[in-house]
Amino acid sequence: MASNGGLVVGIDLGGTNMQIGVVDQRNRIIGREGKKTRAEEGSKRVIERIAKGVGEACTDAGVPLQRIKAVGIAAAGAIDIAHGIVLDAPNLKWRNLPLRNRLQELLDRPVVVDNDVNGAVWGEYRLGAGQGGGDVVGVWVGTGIGGGLVLNHRLYYGEYFTAGEIGHTVLDPGGKAGRRTLEDLCSRTGMARAIKAGLRRHPRSVIRSLTDGTGQIKGSKQLAAAYHQDDPLTVKVVNEAADHLGIALANLVTTLAVDMVIVGGGVTEALGPSYVRRIRRSFERDVFPARCRQCRIVPTRLADNAGLLGAALLAREHSSAGKAAQPLAIS
Amino acid sequence: MASNGGLVVGIDLGGTNMQIGVVDQRNRIIGREGKKTRAEEGSKRVIERIAKGVGEACTDAGVPLQRIKAVGIAAAGAIDIAHGIVLDAPNLKWRNLPLRNRLQELLDRPVVVDNDVNGAVWGEYRLGAGQGGGDVVGVWVGTGIGGGLVLNHRLYYGEYFTAGEIGHTVLDPGGKAGRRTLEDLCSRTGMARAIKAGLRRHPRSVIRSLTDGTGQIKGSKQLAAAYHQDDPLTVKVVNEAADHLGIALANLVTTLAVDMVIVGGGVTEALGPSYVRRIRRSFERDVFPARCRQCRIVPTRLADNAGLLGAALLAREHSSAGKAAQPLAIS
Repeated sequence: MASNGGLVVGIDLGGTNMQIGVVDQRNRIIGREGKKTRAEEGSKRVIERIAKGVGEACTDAGVPLQRIKAVGIAAAGAIDIAHGIVLDAPNLKWRNLPLRNRLQELLDRPVVVDNDVNGAVWGEYRLGAGQGGGDVVGVWVGTGIGGGLVLNHRLYYGEYFTAGEIGHTVLDPGGKAGRRTLEDLCSRTGMARAIKAGLRRHPRSVIRSLTDGTGQIKGSKQLAAAYHQDDPLTVKVVNEAADHLGIALANLVTTLAVDMVIVGGGVTEALGPSYVRRIRRSFERDVFPARCRQCRIVPTRLADNAGLLGAALLAREHSSAGKAAQPLAIS
Repeated sequence: MASNGGLVVGIDLGGTNMQIGVVDQRNRIIGREGKKTRAEEGSKRVIERIAKGVGEACTDAGVPLQRIKAVGIAAAGAIDIAHGIVLDAPNLKWRNLPLRNRLQELLDRPVVVDNDVNGAVWGEYRLGAGQGGGDVVGVWVGTGIGGGLVLNHRLYYGEYFTAGEIGHTVLDPGGKAGRRTLEDLCSRTGMARAIKAGLRRHPRSVIRSLTDGTGQIKGSKQLAAAYHQDDPLTVKVVNEAADHLGIALANLVTTLAVDMVIVGGGVTEALGPSYVRRIRRSFERDVFPARCRQCRIVPTRLADNAGLLGAALLAREHSSAGKAAQPLAIS
C-alpha cells in the first residue's frame, strides 16, 4: 500500500462537462467520475462540485482522499499558472478566479492549475502521440482553436503565461471581410459559418436535412456526417480549412523547427485521417527549410483522456519538485 | 595578465564583408579587423582570410592568438550548430561546409559556429536592447528577413536547428499573385519590388532620380532617402510593409508570449523610429490576449557590433560549459 503515495488526481474542466480521474504511479486511471459543469450556477457551486467529484473518484478507486499527493486541474481559459488563477474563461464565465486556493481549501491537498489545451498536449507528449519524442506543437481544433507548446521538454508558457494561443494569429490580413484569424478560418465555428453562407449556391446539400432546415451545424458529429457523406459543400469547406491549417502549421514549424505537431480536438477526431492527410499536404508545401518536412503531423492517441492525464502528470511533477508546496505557503 | 585568459574572438561573416573582433572579459572590443568576404574565390580562400583576420585582430589588440580561449563565428545561412556545419548559405555559395573543423585546424582554437541573426539576437539579448529582460524574439529586416528566438534565457534552435526562419512564414495565403511570405511582403527586396511596380501610378516619385531612372532600389540608404523625403509612393509601400510586419510580430507574441521583440537590420536602422512606431501600432491591433500589448517592440542598440559580440559571447559560453571541447573530440 505504500506505493499509493504516488496517487494523483487529474481534472479536465470544460464549459459543459468535467472529467475527474485518480491516476496511479503507472499512469493508469484507477477511479473516475464525470459531472456536468453547470457554470451558470456560479463559481462557488462549480468548485464545490469539483471537490465532491474528487471525493467520488477516490471512492471509485477505493482510496481515501488523504492518499492523494496532489490535484491537477486543466481548465478552458487563460490561466496565471504561477498563482493558479483563472484570468479569463468565457465558457465558465470566470474572470480572475483564484481556483487553486479555493480548491486547496476544500480538499486540503496541493492543487496545480493549467490551461486545458496545455494539459492535453502535456498528456499526449508524455503518454500519447509524443511519447519519447522531441519538441512538440499541439493544435486542438473544436469550437475554437487552442494550442500548446512543449519546448526543451517542458510546457512553454512565455512571460505572459499565454503562449500557444495560435487560434488568434492572423493568417489572412487582407480578406474581403477584413483580417481573418486561424480560428475564423479553421475552427468548427468558422467552418459552420462558411457552410451556412454557401447553402445558397448548394441548395441540394445534405446540410439542410441534417440541421432540420436551419443550415446551422451544431457539433463536430454533424459536420463529420456531411463530410463522410461526401456532401460537396461540406467537403469544399473542410478542405479549405484543412489547407489553411496546414499553412499555419508550416508557419509554426518554420518558426520553431519542432519535429512533431499533434492535432487533436473534437473536429479532428470526428473528421478522421483524410482530414489530417489534407492538413499534412498543405503543410509540406509551405514549411521551410526542406528538412522540416520530416516533421510528423499526427493525431492524438489519448482522445478524451489527454487533458485528465496531462493534469494528473502536471500535479505529480509540480509536487515532486516542491513547486506546489511553495505557492501554498504564500496563498 | 592572467585575466586575459577570458579573451575570445567574435566574427560576423556576411556575403560581402566580415567583421572580426577580440573581446575581453568585460565584453569590450579591444582589437578588430574588417575584410571583404570575396565568396567568389571559394570556401578555402575565404576561410584562410578569416584565419588571417583573426591573427590581425589579435595584433590590433596586442595579444597573441594563444591567449584566445575560443572563437565564435556567426555566418549568414542555415547552420547545424551541433556539428559546426554550414548547411546552406546562398550568399556565401556554401553547402554542407564543415566550417568549424576547417577553422579549428587553421587556428588551433575551439570554434563555435552559429547563424548570423542568432548571433546578433544573442548579442542584443545579453549586451544590448534585451539586457536584463526576459524572453525575446529578434527580427532582422534587410535584403531578406531573419529571426532568432531567446526562450528560457537561451537561444532556441529546435529539433532541426533552423528555428526563427520567420521570413519564410506565409502571411497572405490567398493573394492575387499567389501566397506571400513575410519576406515577400516586408523585406527590402519586397519593398523595392512594390515601389518599382508602383512607379507607373506615381510618375513624379523621387525614386526615378534616386535610382538613375531604373526604378530599382539598391540599398537601405536609397530606400530611406526617399522615405525621409516623404515620397508618397515610398511612404505608402514602407507603411504597408510595416503594417504587415506588425501583424507578423503580433502572431509571434500571441504564440510565444515573449515580452520583448527586438527589430534590427539595415532597413530598420535606415528608416528609423517612425518605421518602428508604425510596426508597433499594427502589432497592438492584433496581438492576443490584451495583456500581451505590454510586450515592448524595440530597435537594436549594438547596431553593427551585435553579430560580432553575440558570436564572441557564444564562444565564451560554449567553451566555459566545455561544449566546444566535446565536439572537438569527435571532429
